[in-house]
Amino acid sequence: MKIALDAMGGDHGPEELIAGALLAVERANVSVCLVGDEALLKNHLANLHPKDDVASRIQIVHASQVVEMHDHPVDAIRKKRDSSIMVAFDLHKKGEVEAVVSAGNSGATLAAGVRNLGRLAGISRPGIASIFPTLKKPVVMMDVGANVDCRAVHLYQFAIMASAFSRMFTSDKPRVGLLSNGEETGKGNILVKETYTLLQNSNLNFIGNVEGRDVFQGEVDVIVCDGFVGNICLKISEGLAEASMKMLRDEIVKSLPAKIGYLFALPAFRRFKKRVSYDEYGGAPLLGMDGIGIVSHGKSNARAIMNAILEAKQMKDLRVNERIVAGIAASTEVNGIKE
Amino acid sequence: MKIALDAMGGDHGPEELIAGALLAVERANVSVCLVGDEALLKNHLANLHPKDDVASRIQIVHASQVVEMHDHPVDAIRKKRDSSIMVAFDLHKKGEVEAVVSAGNSGATLAAGVRNLGRLAGISRPGIASIFPTLKKPVVMMDVGANVDCRAVHLYQFAIMASAFSRMFTSDKPRVGLLSNGEETGKGNILVKETYTLLQNSNLNFIGNVEGRDVFQGEVDVIVCDGFVGNICLKISEGLAEASMKMLRDEIVKSLPAKIGYLFALPAFRRFKKRVSYDEYGGAPLLGMDGIGIVSHGKSNARAIMNAILEAKQMKDLRVNERIVAGIAASTEVNGIKE
Repeated sequence: MKIALDAMGGDHGPEELIAGALLAVERANVSVCLVGDEALLKNHLANLHPKDDVASRIQIVHASQVVEMHDHPVDAIRKKRDSSIMVAFDLHKKGEVEAVVSAGNSGATLAAGVRNLGRLAGISRPGIASIFPTLKKPVVMMDVGANVDCRAVHLYQFAIMASAFSRMFTSDKPRVGLLSNGEETGKGNILVKETYTLLQNSNLNFIGNVEGRDVFQGEVDVIVCDGFVGNICLKISEGLAEASMKMLRDEIVKSLPAKIGYLFALPAFRRFKKRVSYDEYGGAPLLGMDGIGIVSHGKSNARAIMNAILEAKQMKDLRVNERIVAGIAASTEVNGIKE
Repeated sequence: MKIALDAMGGDHGPEELIAGALLAVERANVSVCLVGDEALLKNHLANLHPKDDVASRIQIVHASQVVEMHDHPVDAIRKKRDSSIMVAFDLHKKGEVEAVVSAGNSGATLAAGVRNLGRLAGISRPGIASIFPTLKKPVVMMDVGANVDCRAVHLYQFAIMASAFSRMFTSDKPRVGLLSNGEETGKGNILVKETYTLLQNSNLNFIGNVEGRDVFQGEVDVIVCDGFVGNICLKISEGLAEASMKMLRDEIVKSLPAKIGYLFALPAFRRFKKRVSYDEYGGAPLLGMDGIGIVSHGKSNARAIMNAILEAKQMKDLRVNERIVAGIAASTEVNGIKE
């Protein structure tokens, strides 16, 4: 399987991204097409001294422009036709690659994907899902930012798409929860109450409303919400994790015994960090477009990029898109639910 | 100042609550009226052996019923007229106390408060604010659960109410942020975009949109959102904090050096815990009703109850409700904004 990597996105620059591509090629039966400034990428690639068998599975395709993090997604892909992310999805459209991975502007990546590849049959609104670590298996939340104003049928389709994707983590029928301000039936805003009815009448494994505190418990495989709420959940979790670590560090450096104690406990802290780190979970899948796309965190290191590339491969191997299409078709035929 | 304490709410039972009342009476110039089952409360109070000067500022008022955590708020206060929370707000209405503190059902507490005391002049929707610890000063978020479907004018009023309350933490003009899925103007769902315009044209110190990750940075004093989003923020933060601590503990107990190291670092962990614990922040103020009410977390220990009682006193001393009324009046006169 060949996967395009937008080698110009991300906060750490091309070399870290290319290092991730090399790790992925070493680890799995994939080849990677690096998209970006050809001379620059060649240079970085040479600096990393890949072995011949690895180098033979790395290709470079030139793109003259870059979509920046602060660019407006739709404007950017309209104006920057030769940007690395547009060129990457163009390769996908032509069938030269089967997936795209980017650590760049997530809105622009989704927009470029949908523009080049179109939507899967029956999908009204493609979106971005995110993988949250929990006390048990990871949970898939959708949408986390692409669709801020939604109708119930959109949330219902997010449930189908995220259920298909959660096959990555569970072989059972995934348990779907609807994010609300209380567990009891009847809790929620108007959108949630309407979505509740649709999910209840569907053939998904709907377990009812879940609250914010349930997100990290691991008692549910899929959490459905609109992109406004999902984006806030994602960012508040990141913000709290960072702030807590900073506060804890501030307290530890205040005393010598605490510093010594911390050194003893360091391997435990590292295991904990690994358990909750997004480096280990690849990236956020773009679901609902007719192809495979993964958006990695801007801060992604090589390991995170490797995991995103492996995740793209797994999405193909598990036939996630075919499952989505089948799920939508079944919901229209069996449950009569359509836009 | 005399404050009524709903002595039947909370997960730890009346004795912990009464212990909190005793701490508050020792600490500040307040007296407390315990509301609940008279015989039971007398018994618990005697067990705690308060000194005479403390005991003289504790009074007991009988209430024969209790609103349970799972009771539907509005139904509960309609059916349980002699519940501790209804009796407590009845004392407030009669002027026998000037504030009510409860660690019970928050929806029922707000409903009982609004029913007995009414709303402040010009307020459409009273709500619940919550105090979040940050890297700097605490931030006040409103609404966190009372109003799940809101219009822009409601969020605008939350901004006025929370700004008045944030006087607890800042003497400057509080910086108001609007919770959104991006910082840039124009980001947000329909509700947020409409609210943005109102806040921009107000005389509040509006700094624009803030993201989930900004909540814990301490660069803003007030964060405005609807009660659906706010409730999820509150619970996801609690859930993540609990899950992280559990995961970290799991990793630490796996190795002896880590356990020893943890013991050395324990005082630092305790200081960290104190810094982020809701025990230290009193409780969530009910804002917009014509009186003072604080809802403490169900898990509140005596220290948290003491802080909630002191918070109620501070709300009176800082004339929070007068500030709210003045803020609403100014917004109607100067900005022409009203429901």
